[in-house]
Amino acid sequence: MAKYCFGIDIGGTSIKLGLFNLAGVLLEKWEIPTRTEAYGERIIPDIAGSVKEKMREHSLGTAQVAGLGIGVPGQVDAAGTVLLAENLGWRNIPLSQILTEDTGIPVKTENDANLAALGELRQGSGRGCRNMMLVTVGTGIGCGIILDGAVVAGANGAAGEIGHIHVEDAVKAPCNCGNYGCLEQVASARGITMLAGYILEMSKEPSVLRGQSLSARRVFEAAKSGDKLAVWVVGRFGFYLGKALALCSCVIDPERIVIGGGVSGAGEIVVEYVQKYYRRYAFPACADTEFCLAKLGNDAGIYGAAELVIG
Amino acid sequence: MAKYCFGIDIGGTSIKLGLFNLAGVLLEKWEIPTRTEAYGERIIPDIAGSVKEKMREHSLGTAQVAGLGIGVPGQVDAAGTVLLAENLGWRNIPLSQILTEDTGIPVKTENDANLAALGELRQGSGRGCRNMMLVTVGTGIGCGIILDGAVVAGANGAAGEIGHIHVEDAVKAPCNCGNYGCLEQVASARGITMLAGYILEMSKEPSVLRGQSLSARRVFEAAKSGDKLAVWVVGRFGFYLGKALALCSCVIDPERIVIGGGVSGAGEIVVEYVQKYYRRYAFPACADTEFCLAKLGNDAGIYGAAELVIG
Repeated sequence: MAKYCFGIDIGGTSIKLGLFNLAGVLLEKWEIPTRTEAYGERIIPDIAGSVKEKMREHSLGTAQVAGLGIGVPGQVDAAGTVLLAENLGWRNIPLSQILTEDTGIPVKTENDANLAALGELRQGSGRGCRNMMLVTVGTGIGCGIILDGAVVAGANGAAGEIGHIHVEDAVKAPCNCGNYGCLEQVASARGITMLAGYILEMSKEPSVLRGQSLSARRVFEAAKSGDKLAVWVVGRFGFYLGKALALCSCVIDPERIVIGGGVSGAGEIVVEYVQKYYRRYAFPACADTEFCLAKLGNDAGIYGAAELVIG
Repeated sequence: MAKYCFGIDIGGTSIKLGLFNLAGVLLEKWEIPTRTEAYGERIIPDIAGSVKEKMREHSLGTAQVAGLGIGVPGQVDAAGTVLLAENLGWRNIPLSQILTEDTGIPVKTENDANLAALGELRQGSGRGCRNMMLVTVGTGIGCGIILDGAVVAGANGAAGEIGHIHVEDAVKAPCNCGNYGCLEQVASARGITMLAGYILEMSKEPSVLRGQSLSARRVFEAAKSGDKLAVWVVGRFGFYLGKALALCSCVIDPERIVIGGGVSGAGEIVVEYVQKYYRRYAFPACADTEFCLAKLGNDAGIYGAAELVIG
């Protein structure tokens, strides 16, 4: 009888794998590199090989493994075909089908941001809640949406692409998506760093950020110590993201908004500034939506992938 | 054995009622006035009375009626309690419970915009689709969202309140909701009329709208005949609503967006201008979301209420 499952999270530089029991408890985790060369043709055999090796190591037969859940950084359709995953070089790859044939184990595939949200919902900051958004603020801005306990994928696998909400007419440089003025351009770690660089150049105000190599983390640290320019930059970040999340609430009215990703490592200050502007723009019935920081960090994806199997 | 159900739609001035078979076919419809005096205390007995009278007329016993579905212009919780319905004078009214006790028939209650969306999905412009938004542009802007075939209600019953997305900093007058610059203030029938009045005053351009009493309908008719000022106003309407819907797509990525409400009576020109700006701001994967006009008109609410019972 099946007692285990695998949760797998394919990233641009490494693939995270976890062996879980069917209560969703992580028993063991490891990583392998993501070999993106040659349109990512090594990725699927690498995953299959790593899973089979782990099964041999623990003398597990296919009957003891309920399934593999896999998160992919891209658009995935209902049949588990990856329509587009730019960072992996993939287009129209029937991942679930190929990997099921290769391993003899049922495979379920989903977008990685959606699975991270499912992981936080079941095993992290979303516990006890049925309607949740996980917003990850890192190099880019990702988002997974859970309604009534289930992941929302969208007709084109693009639900939760809130990083591409248009928020700023003044941005004239194109976003990765081809549009201009996307949330991700101004409120991601990269956006925060760029804005700090810009304001340092434009202003004569003294700042501990001057002469340092800039990062979003340093901007938040400086803001915590009361640095005026850094506080201004963090305020702009809060304005952009808080206002965008207020718009999202007018659409789906979530119970809780969980903030994760690299930038959330700065701690409660992130929630504080986002919530300040969220409240200013939210529809009144949604003004008290709960905010909190993510708990599972980089493991959210493998937890969610396992939960996809557990169901 | 139950063969019938009732679909009921409570509006601010009249209550629409329909008798349906369990295939969702409307057999008969009628209306009664909405008596909102004394905090709307007459509304529930009026509905119960009208339903019982119709059952006597057709010699129907409670065993032959599967249920009553009711749409309410306000926020409804999962137990069928109306948390707030400003236009009816209602606050915390356990509608499903009271009406079940009064009629002996199971009652299900939902927000009216959500039910209109369910009606269009099952019996109107949404047929064959699982993920849909119905946007109703009338005096205000309402929206019902269907994902994976089911109504999205939201944690505070406020999902689909897209009329209260902040879109315009220049609007200084407060919206009904208490905020400023809401979509509903600039892109509803009232918003279109106000904008036309403003531009007629500010511009010296000749226009067939001059000297007429203004309405959204007249603005669209004038735009169809090529009136330059009217075309400008319709363009602004398309900009505000199309851009807001592009933001919504970044959140839920619907398959189809159906436009209903009084303003949709102007016809394809509405879709044309909304879609023009939608495409400009949409995340590329969502640029080809289908747009169409609603089919069921004012009956969408009773159709959806019946479908709530049919399940």
